[in-house]
Amino acid sequence: MTTLSPYDSMSPVTQAAYRAKAAAADLAPLPRAVKDDALLAIADALEVRTAEIVEANAKDVAKARENGTSEAIVDRLTLTPERVRAIASDVRDVAKLPDPVGEVVRGSTLPNGIDLRQVRVPLGVVGIIYEARPNVTVDAAALCLKSGNAVLLRGSASAYASNTALVRVIRDAVGGAGLPADAVQLVPGESRDSVRELMRARGLVDVLIPRGGASLIRTVVNESTVPVIETGTGNCHVYVDAQADIDTAVEILINSKAQRVSVCNAAETLLVHQDIAPAFLPRALDALAEAGVTVHADDRVMAYAKDSKVTAVEATPEDWETEYLSHDIAAAVVDSLDKAVEHIRLWTSGHTEAIVTTSQQAARRFTQLVDSTTVAVNASTRFTDGGQFGFGAEIGISTQKLHARGPMGLPELTSTKYIVTGDGHVRR
Amino acid sequence: MTTLSPYDSMSPVTQAAYRAKAAAADLAPLPRAVKDDALLAIADALEVRTAEIVEANAKDVAKARENGTSEAIVDRLTLTPERVRAIASDVRDVAKLPDPVGEVVRGSTLPNGIDLRQVRVPLGVVGIIYEARPNVTVDAAALCLKSGNAVLLRGSASAYASNTALVRVIRDAVGGAGLPADAVQLVPGESRDSVRELMRARGLVDVLIPRGGASLIRTVVNESTVPVIETGTGNCHVYVDAQADIDTAVEILINSKAQRVSVCNAAETLLVHQDIAPAFLPRALDALAEAGVTVHADDRVMAYAKDSKVTAVEATPEDWETEYLSHDIAAAVVDSLDKAVEHIRLWTSGHTEAIVTTSQQAARRFTQLVDSTTVAVNASTRFTDGGQFGFGAEIGISTQKLHARGPMGLPELTSTKYIVTGDGHVRR
Repeated sequence: MTTLSPYDSMSPVTQAAYRAKAAAADLAPLPRAVKDDALLAIADALEVRTAEIVEANAKDVAKARENGTSEAIVDRLTLTPERVRAIASDVRDVAKLPDPVGEVVRGSTLPNGIDLRQVRVPLGVVGIIYEARPNVTVDAAALCLKSGNAVLLRGSASAYASNTALVRVIRDAVGGAGLPADAVQLVPGESRDSVRELMRARGLVDVLIPRGGASLIRTVVNESTVPVIETGTGNCHVYVDAQADIDTAVEILINSKAQRVSVCNAAETLLVHQDIAPAFLPRALDALAEAGVTVHADDRVMAYAKDSKVTAVEATPEDWETEYLSHDIAAAVVDSLDKAVEHIRLWTSGHTEAIVTTSQQAARRFTQLVDSTTVAVNASTRFTDGGQFGFGAEIGISTQKLHARGPMGLPELTSTKYIVTGDGHVRR
Repeated sequence: MTTLSPYDSMSPVTQAAYRAKAAAADLAPLPRAVKDDALLAIADALEVRTAEIVEANAKDVAKARENGTSEAIVDRLTLTPERVRAIASDVRDVAKLPDPVGEVVRGSTLPNGIDLRQVRVPLGVVGIIYEARPNVTVDAAALCLKSGNAVLLRGSASAYASNTALVRVIRDAVGGAGLPADAVQLVPGESRDSVRELMRARGLVDVLIPRGGASLIRTVVNESTVPVIETGTGNCHVYVDAQADIDTAVEILINSKAQRVSVCNAAETLLVHQDIAPAFLPRALDALAEAGVTVHADDRVMAYAKDSKVTAVEATPEDWETEYLSHDIAAAVVDSLDKAVEHIRLWTSGHTEAIVTTSQQAARRFTQLVDSTTVAVNASTRFTDGGQFGFGAEIGISTQKLHARGPMGLPELTSTKYIVTGDGHVRR
């Protein structure tokens, strides 16, 4: 007769979650030095075992090519020795960041003499569901370990061999550094069922962070009983106010739209105050044309587009809510700043909105009324980023209001607890 | 022909949510003085219109008595002129609290010269689902208004007349103070369907806070697509360490268990280190007997109970997870502090756990390893409370890790946004 372990009757995903929960309990009290040593061990192991990683990755790449995957996506999937070195270097950078765990967020002595402290603690078990890029596997593991969390990684099936190799290397290093290897686990199984199980693991998994396309995020938000942090959908707006420097406005528009079109902080809609439209739009449309951008124009913008070399198509209501992630922008003329705000409130995904203005009152009103993770005044939408904000690292950009909003660094991967210390205090 | 409003095709709950969202947009930029004036107007109106409120409440009370409701619950439901005055006074206290909105949480100048500020903003629309007590109606409305949020109140059907009268008075005062009356709404309908609709109003309602019994909270957590803050289930533990002052331990135990048994921060389980059990348990069991507490004892505690006048029954595994909210306590002897932690981690609802010890190492280890909203050292579990913590007000006690943990005051009713200010900054 064999002895049954309590895990035996569970699905592989639930087993993984239980093991992660146990590992999280071990990780939580670890001091920074122990965690940093493990991170440095991971970085070293990634470099020492690069060949093994690149070889596994080659299988994913070959399969992707067989399936006719676009070269852009194959490129995102591909790991070269140089890229593995860069990933290892990112892990070393995470080791250099301050440890959020143990930070006293607030503290006071109560009138009765009790000492009250609110301190940062790890969340526990973090689940990450993400698409193609295998570098996310290492990034997410490093950020979670640094903040004392166990992590369940559910990458895309198309990167399964790469992720398996990366997680094997990471776990060996973590175990070798004396930490529980189960702190980092790849969610078993390549099918959708494993995602579904992860979304139902309430009580075992403390938070799920989906990183990827809008449809993935929508599915997780709607179906998960585990708390979710929504990330990354960016229908960002640039509003050019009645009073604005035209050169500045054109430069911010082009940078916001075209510096990199495939990212969530790229601009997708241009709103122009009617008073500045005659001076601004001819210049802006020519600049957009030069940047290879197609304009989805309302009637008033279209009137200007006809005199420009820009490619313009008539905007439909759908354009106002579309995150193109391509060389396209929706554009409209608005009667006032308040109308711009109204448009944004109606259509935005709440990521980033920029105003270009020389008016202090306009800047103040726009920042007060617009309710998005980030409001930029005379700056490109492209600055909404953990690296740009000086956080040193980013696990994603939250577009929700609860827990974390905007770029999420290490503190956003923590919760808090209160420590109440008395000398036998009782309540009267 | 009549003109259809866009609201006409919606259910009453969805209409209410849309109106709340519009009101929330108007509330968000209001300065503190305007909100405080509205709160003072509410307090005045409650006092001026006390007769109307007490009269409506009498209908609920009569109905409750007809339905054979217990006198304890009828008492919680009842509003007298004195109680209305106390509620009005609480609203004036909320007006005196600092406004969390606009607080700069972090701020810096980035290396490129951009000014970055993270500022507190209202959550938007807060939904509160709660049971009998009509004072929650006013408390919640005052806290939400103060923090710039619109609120959808879904009280119990048994308090419908009282809540309707209270909300009418509040809305009149809010409207009279020049704020949108729709900032405070009672969710229409007394049936369960209205709760279900509220839980599905994702995108309109920003957060749901269930306040009440465990089954209400479980339902909301499982069925809501709107983000939820779990509150209030408290299976709190008192652990008496090997080294502890016996008098202190007995006093903290009795205060934690019996000072008020019906509240979430009352103790429900006693764990005793085996080394101190012979000295502590006889004293503790007698004290529990005197406080009228029945002990649900494991074998080792039972051995002591036999020599005490305490009422003791054999503990079943169910006792370890039960929140009695009555004159009952589960009790066990443990081999070590680590075994106590293990027991707590397995069974706790994560609310509050106390250690009684004279050992600095034990206190440190217990606070590091126990992962609950509050860990008390030589203090009663009963201190976990927004009022006791000096927050001035409390919307509930969160037992989850995301967004807010422990007693929630006004800052916990806010989110943040980043303001990025440049001089035409673009990303290179």
